Amino acid sequence: MSTAVTVQETAAFLRKSNNILILAHASPDGDTIGSSHALCRALRQLGKTAAIACSDKFPAKYGYLTDSMEAQRFQPRVIVSIDIADEQLFGAKLRELSDKVDLCIDHHVSNTGYAKKLLLDTKAAAACEVMVRVVEALGVPVDSYIASAIYTGLSSDTGCFRYSNTTPATLRCAASMAEKGADTAAINKILFETVSISRMKVESAALSALEILFDGRAAVMTITLEMLKNAGAADDELEGLASLPARLEGVEAGVTIKEKSPGVFKISMRTNGKVNASQVCAKLGGGGHPCAAGCELTGTLEHAKETIIGLLNGALN
Amino acid sequence: MSTAVTVQETAAFLRKSNNILILAHASPDGDTIGSSHALCRALRQLGKTAAIACSDKFPAKYGYLTDSMEAQRFQPRVIVSIDIADEQLFGAKLRELSDKVDLCIDHHVSNTGYAKKLLLDTKAAAACEVMVRVVEALGVPVDSYIASAIYTGLSSDTGCFRYSNTTPATLRCAASMAEKGADTAAINKILFETVSISRMKVESAALSALEILFDGRAAVMTITLEMLKNAGAADDELEGLASLPARLEGVEAGVTIKEKSPGVFKISMRTNGKVNASQVCAKLGGGGHPCAAGCELTGTLEHAKETIIGLLNGALN
Repeated sequence: MSTAVTVQETAAFLRKSNNILILAHASPDGDTIGSSHALCRALRQLGKTAAIACSDKFPAKYGYLTDSMEAQRFQPRVIVSIDIADEQLFGAKLRELSDKVDLCIDHHVSNTGYAKKLLLDTKAAAACEVMVRVVEALGVPVDSYIASAIYTGLSSDTGCFRYSNTTPATLRCAASMAEKGADTAAINKILFETVSISRMKVESAALSALEILFDGRAAVMTITLEMLKNAGAADDELEGLASLPARLEGVEAGVTIKEKSPGVFKISMRTNGKVNASQVCAKLGGGGHPCAAGCELTGTLEHAKETIIGLLNGALN
Repeated sequence: MSTAVTVQETAAFLRKSNNILILAHASPDGDTIGSSHALCRALRQLGKTAAIACSDKFPAKYGYLTDSMEAQRFQPRVIVSIDIADEQLFGAKLRELSDKVDLCIDHHVSNTGYAKKLLLDTKAAAACEVMVRVVEALGVPVDSYIASAIYTGLSSDTGCFRYSNTTPATLRCAASMAEKGADTAAINKILFETVSISRMKVESAALSALEILFDGRAAVMTITLEMLKNAGAADDELEGLASLPARLEGVEAGVTIKEKSPGVFKISMRTNGKVNASQVCAKLGGGGHPCAAGCELTGTLEHAKETIIGLLNGALN
């Protein structure tokens, strides 16, 4: 297990370190990218040698952070992981480093304690909310680059301050980053407005096949492998799509049937609480929470749909 | 012209007033509803008789604010307008009151000064950002109802803190409202997640008819009267839809062709700045800004589309 450290202890450790390799998690998102880049910049401001590594490529849309961070080649003496809750999230390329981490900075309650030292704040909405305290404790001024990096993580992990993980502290931290030069509107445009053409095509196909049932009290959407193929879309472009049926006004239970592989269907059910999604999915060997649950079905799409509709019929009456 | 008043002067005026009628603008949004309800609650807390009027019905989704505000019938002695920039926005039912307004509380730079007194802060992202200062100056504690009302306006007018009108002060105000009991996640779900079935159907039809042109550098979407009719959708359900083509990755110019009446098409063009939308639309008798402009075309849909595509071809090369 890790030794828990405070922000001050983290700063003291980093101050006496050099040749620092910072690791971001695989399938990198705005929070792991923002917090790793903020730290790397802060360490370089202190005259240290530091670089960032990730098993996967950083998506091009984060170019405003990644493009100006020049590569530095060196033999790492200290390894710091950021926003990485467990060993799986290191990804294939960095897996071998997961038991060599000196310090982990994170906000996930699920952190497995794989690092020697762990700075963990599970109340923080984003790793960036922890990171800005580290930067300040290092005595590095928050410039517009660091402010943009931190803001990126805050906004990204909270769905632009929409989700329930957003706290007053998150909003105040965002205010401070805006003051220090983060172009919040431009960053949010990149994070939330831009849609790939393939995602739009899948969404269009899925919407066309959406079925409204039981006088609008339920909705079932299907995403087939054929739709993905026709749209040229990858699985990682489907973020948020499964929740669409439940967002419809008046719908008490929204279901998305996603074809994982031929004849295998992943069922996601979201409800407004009147229907217990967990109980319904448990009948099919799945589980989850009262408002969001899932299960897996095999067979034909028609069979999967009929099974779900039959259970919805029971649950709604 | 109005006499400009400060927050303190506004509070002093309200403190000595009674039988106060608060006006919200027509086609009411979250900001006019939130700020009028916050003020009404605060005045009633001070033992005053106060009520809210609006030319249009408040949308049902704001029930968490409107349902618990009991009606009070009285002869108004003081009229206060909230978030109403000009006389047109009073709407048909309240038009006759527009020259009888004692006090206006607003944040629009376009305010025409129709009221006797005017508390105006054009730097505020929302009227609610001004209103909370009035409530505090009145000495009324911000309870969870007022906090929810104020947060509703802040979030609603900034697209959940996404737009460039969001300032550090807006974010700090939101933090304070969250602390005082606004259920921010629940409010944002109501404001931004719930979609009407008719809106979803129009979006689906419009997406199916979306054309990607010039190797993905342009996109043209059409919304016809037939699509609206088939979906059972009204014009006020189309908010934000026209900007969809321009949100597509790689698209430099996105155009939405909306059939206003048979044979009359409203063209909206959004660009990333490389194509000057204003110049393109000026060629068709329209205008606007370099990144967002519009014009009107008459004839057949095919003719409108060909005209636009022809101009796009020129602008992109």
